[in-house]
Amino acid sequence: MSPMSILVSLDLLGIFVFAMSGALVAIRKDLDLFGVLVLAGATGLGGGFIRDVLIDATPPAALADWRYLLVPVTAGLLCFFAHPALARIERHINVLDAFGLSLFCVTGAIKAMEYGLGPVPAALMGMVTGIGGGMIRDVLAGRVPVVFRGELYATPALAGAAVVAVLHEFGQPLYLAAIGGLLCLVWRLVALRRNWQAPKPGGQSSV
Amino acid sequence: MSPMSILVSLDLLGIFVFAMSGALVAIRKDLDLFGVLVLAGATGLGGGFIRDVLIDATPPAALADWRYLLVPVTAGLLCFFAHPALARIERHINVLDAFGLSLFCVTGAIKAMEYGLGPVPAALMGMVTGIGGGMIRDVLAGRVPVVFRGELYATPALAGAAVVAVLHEFGQPLYLAAIGGLLCLVWRLVALRRNWQAPKPGGQSSV
Amino acid sequence: MSPMSILVSLDLLGIFVFAMSGALVAIRKDLDLFGVLVLAGATGLGGGFIRDVLIDATPPAALADWRYLLVPVTAGLLCFFAHPALARIERHINVLDAFGLSLFCVTGAIKAMEYGLGPVPAALMGMVTGIGGGMIRDVLAGRVPVVFRGELYATPALAGAAVVAVLHEFGQPLYLAAIGGLLCLVWRLVALRRNWQAPKPGGQSSV
Repeated sequence: MSPMSILVSLDLLGIFVFAMSGALVAIRKDLDLFGVLVLAGATGLGGGFIRDVLIDATPPAALADWRYLLVPVTAGLLCFFAHPALARIERHINVLDAFGLSLFCVTGAIKAMEYGLGPVPAALMGMVTGIGGGMIRDVLAGRVPVVFRGELYATPALAGAAVVAVLHEFGQPLYLAAIGGLLCLVWRLVALRRNWQAPKPGGQSSV
Repeated sequence: MSPMSILVSLDLLGIFVFAMSGALVAIRKDLDLFGVLVLAGATGLGGGFIRDVLIDATPPAALADWRYLLVPVTAGLLCFFAHPALARIERHINVLDAFGLSLFCVTGAIKAMEYGLGPVPAALMGMVTGIGGGMIRDVLAGRVPVVFRGELYATPALAGAAVVAVLHEFGQPLYLAAIGGLLCLVWRLVALRRNWQAPKPGGQSSV
Repeated sequence: MSPMSILVSLDLLGIFVFAMSGALVAIRKDLDLFGVLVLAGATGLGGGFIRDVLIDATPPAALADWRYLLVPVTAGLLCFFAHPALARIERHINVLDAFGLSLFCVTGAIKAMEYGLGPVPAALMGMVTGIGGGMIRDVLAGRVPVVFRGELYATPALAGAAVVAVLHEFGQPLYLAAIGGLLCLVWRLVALRRNWQAPKPGGQSSV
């Protein structure tokens, strides 16, 4: 496989995994088939859509190439019909989700720099690509985004995207971006296993 | 009237009806005059805004031509002052809303194809144009989008938009798009009358 | 200082104040450090992002120049560590927030007209720039936007932006835009002090 087709394959895998997480939230919220498919699509493609709209890379790849749309639909249908089985392997889905996050923070940062952004905004766009889909999912499902709720999720994505942006800024070859992806992946997996939490404000505990 | 001015008139009618549905939700949520007007505008124009931003047709028509903005403002003021009377004819508003949905799924798909999208993403954009305003309305009003909640609403819009996209792809003249609109309209009206529901995931009923 | 650098300084001050309001909501909702920073960024930059995406001024200034991003991060960190002290001066923060609102409604309207919008949509974009960040903040924090809830907030912003748009339309020099900003500022401050409320729909009080 060429590097490009590897990137596209990984991208599609990331969309698939994120779409599954959206579909499972929809099922837990007792939404109908359509709600499941829309939450699958919004979660799988939403982060990339936000990035593409902000960096003016419109129409987003998923709208220019319809095969992209098959991926969240397939993930949504799979969850709709097989969710009792999937619930049993949810821990493994979290691991796949960490892969998706790592991949999206890398590809998001690279795409932002290709569209002329500097390294700092590009790192931010990488993080947004990774976490944006989940935020849209949670807003549509009527809950505060879980990414805000303690679990260490966004920081690894930002760190990974920052590494990619710095390497790119110093003219390093593209495959070294894998370092950023690995950093995000390992950090996220260790955080999952050890249940690391992000710091919370002190001095006050009222809502 | 020319075909173009018919299309624009129908578009404005669709915006008006959708804006009324937004204003009525705002009134039921006890929002103030401003909230009523903003929900009216977001519901009437939001679906088109999402489509235009994604297909890079910015600024959206409603911002390029200020007369578009009069429509949701008028609908919002009408509801603000006359909502007790309107509540009595809510069933008829649902019928008008079905017209708006049918129209938006057709015009949304046509516009997306005019901006170079293929038939599958164009059908998706048609559906988004039809349901996007209502989704923004519900998120701003602090509830899970009703379009996810069982009632058959998005599927007719997607079906109508798909018919339009396929006809367009095979070079059929534009007025045949009315077939897609009719399909959406009839399906939605029958679903309303017979209270058809979209399928829900089985095997689990917890929230 | 040149007029341009004054405008940029005021813009950064507005972002800072709005970012603080976002961070304080996040702290009150017991979000983690990341949630605080994201709500700070979304509140400080969100209104401008919505405007820039709609008028096709992408990528937004805050993504083209990374120094913009330092402002909400600083505001977020300040609130994260000093929020007990800040809670005591919250009334003064409301006054600063009124400055931010006045500034954003002016700069938002000017930017929209520079990108070719007419005066009516430009006034709307000015208002959106002023209130959009707070709306995103509230949706992400899981509450109905406060701007809908009685307090007089959006109307002053719309009025200020409308004055700017009309003056610009009649070829008046740019510094007269300060009239619009002053109108918004004074109106908002008096509304704060006297607790003015926007009108609510009559005839019905059920939710």
